[in-house]
Amino acid sequence: MREFDLIQHFFNTIELCRSDVVLGIGDDAALLRPPHGQHLVVTTDTLVQDKHFPASASPADIGYKSLAVNLSDLAAMGAEPAWILLALTLPIADETWLQQFAQGFFSLMRDFHCQLVGGNLSSGPLSVTVQALGFVPAGQALLRSGAQVGDRIYVSGTLGDAGLALAYLKNSTPFSFNEKQIQCLIQRLHRPQPRVDMGLALRGLASSAIDISDGLAADLGHILSASQVGAKLTVTELPLSDILQRLSSEEAWQLALSAGDDYELCFTVSPTYEKTLQQCLKKISYPVTCIGVITKDPGLNVYVKENTQFILNRTGFQHFVDNNSFKN
Amino acid sequence: MREFDLIQHFFNTIELCRSDVVLGIGDDAALLRPPHGQHLVVTTDTLVQDKHFPASASPADIGYKSLAVNLSDLAAMGAEPAWILLALTLPIADETWLQQFAQGFFSLMRDFHCQLVGGNLSSGPLSVTVQALGFVPAGQALLRSGAQVGDRIYVSGTLGDAGLALAYLKNSTPFSFNEKQIQCLIQRLHRPQPRVDMGLALRGLASSAIDISDGLAADLGHILSASQVGAKLTVTELPLSDILQRLSSEEAWQLALSAGDDYELCFTVSPTYEKTLQQCLKKISYPVTCIGVITKDPGLNVYVKENTQFILNRTGFQHFVDNNSFKN
Repeated sequence: MREFDLIQHFFNTIELCRSDVVLGIGDDAALLRPPHGQHLVVTTDTLVQDKHFPASASPADIGYKSLAVNLSDLAAMGAEPAWILLALTLPIADETWLQQFAQGFFSLMRDFHCQLVGGNLSSGPLSVTVQALGFVPAGQALLRSGAQVGDRIYVSGTLGDAGLALAYLKNSTPFSFNEKQIQCLIQRLHRPQPRVDMGLALRGLASSAIDISDGLAADLGHILSASQVGAKLTVTELPLSDILQRLSSEEAWQLALSAGDDYELCFTVSPTYEKTLQQCLKKISYPVTCIGVITKDPGLNVYVKENTQFILNRTGFQHFVDNNSFKN
Repeated sequence: MREFDLIQHFFNTIELCRSDVVLGIGDDAALLRPPHGQHLVVTTDTLVQDKHFPASASPADIGYKSLAVNLSDLAAMGAEPAWILLALTLPIADETWLQQFAQGFFSLMRDFHCQLVGGNLSSGPLSVTVQALGFVPAGQALLRSGAQVGDRIYVSGTLGDAGLALAYLKNSTPFSFNEKQIQCLIQRLHRPQPRVDMGLALRGLASSAIDISDGLAADLGHILSASQVGAKLTVTELPLSDILQRLSSEEAWQLALSAGDDYELCFTVSPTYEKTLQQCLKKISYPVTCIGVITKDPGLNVYVKENTQFILNRTGFQHFVDNNSFKN
């Protein structure tokens, strides 16, 4: 099949038809009808083989994750996802690969009622770039820049699992896991859950938000810079999965603070909204944990307990520095 | 410099600030204010090294062209470009390379009053994916599907120059050119002019339009399929540059019909709008030529003269088929 036929066959499915799509795949560009009074929220992210995923990753996982990391960005803005574009570069037009990739990609798109409205298929080294577009009512977007001194810092889910999965895949952890634990970890790495429901719940409530792609310390650091504040965290408050708790506390905390790829949300809420937040969280099916507080003193200060600082080994994934990693 | 610093340094320029950008580069996603009553027009295209451009191409040319091919798609829809996202994957964070890339990219963005509102920088094999967003008043977009029997077929500019440049770079043309001619050809390949002004002029006038990226025969073929009509072309009407006219007629026509990368517009207009079209074309600084007519008989029929058919050697660039080409 040629490019045009491949796109028609694998990606121009009619199962997801949004009424705000005037013209989808098949012309020079898509025609879309944005809702009146809302801001358009737009993001793009690329996954490159051997950088963001190992060559051993299944096509379905690559398809899933390439969309998930973009939906996670929309979630961190409090946006409702709507339209997706996919620019896929692959060495050969392998129909089985494309079939499986599309299966992973569309399963997640279906979960969030998004429609693929355009894209591009090229030959070249495997790489996937997705653009996600969504909406947020004007003035309600969650920015990095709104954290205030005294705000409490929260994270969704548990931290460090994807990092441990990565360490396991690279044989750089001395721990052994049973088959179920391995499956669970790998799932956390390859199939992150975009916290779109959390982002929507936090509209008008959180003072700032970010998704954790490069590690808590690094990503919270972006909130601190943008908001010109500091933060105090206590490692004993960090939410850890049962599997992570099998590690030494030191190792588990290092992973929870610095490993990326968890795609949980980190956000800040004023203590005056504590009750409203607890009400909102009743709709959320995963844990949300308060891990610290925003301070006037700049920088990120991490403590084991009062007056005992915790020393971070590293500060998050950096492109062009961590060249052997699979992280995003 | 790290990813974040590289983006801030090379891409977060404040020189192009549109009032409809609520939040640009620097958060999880951009926040944009689409104009009321217009449709959003969205496209994405990828350029991969050794597929769409030779390794010898200058970073400034790669930057320019990666944006140009996307603006060309918006032009073909009759859209006004507004916002750009850039997903750039490159092997090493070479600051000189980035500086030059940004120079080519921003020079074109400036010409069209667009603003870069987001993006992504990854390490990996060189590849550039751009997403372009623009607007068109509801109902005025130029589609591939509206061509009617009897409509005249037009193309902007001249055809086949980029194809000849490619043949020259690959040493597959026996012709020799002087330095000025070579510069001119290479310019046509690396610095295509997106015909945005033409697209805007054709709103409400053209019955169909497409940009010529894969060759006239292939791209006009998309109009014919989408509109369920056929076409009759006469090769002697094809607009050829002075340089292309140095070739044999046979070779020049083959290039004009099948070589890609010209990024001219091909469009159809009803003969009843002939006068209006001629009025509109007064504002256009490049030639626009009538090359044929839409027919009821399906397929593309190309003639040298009445009753003498012209046989096409090939039918345009195909991904996964023409793997050694640099075309898009």
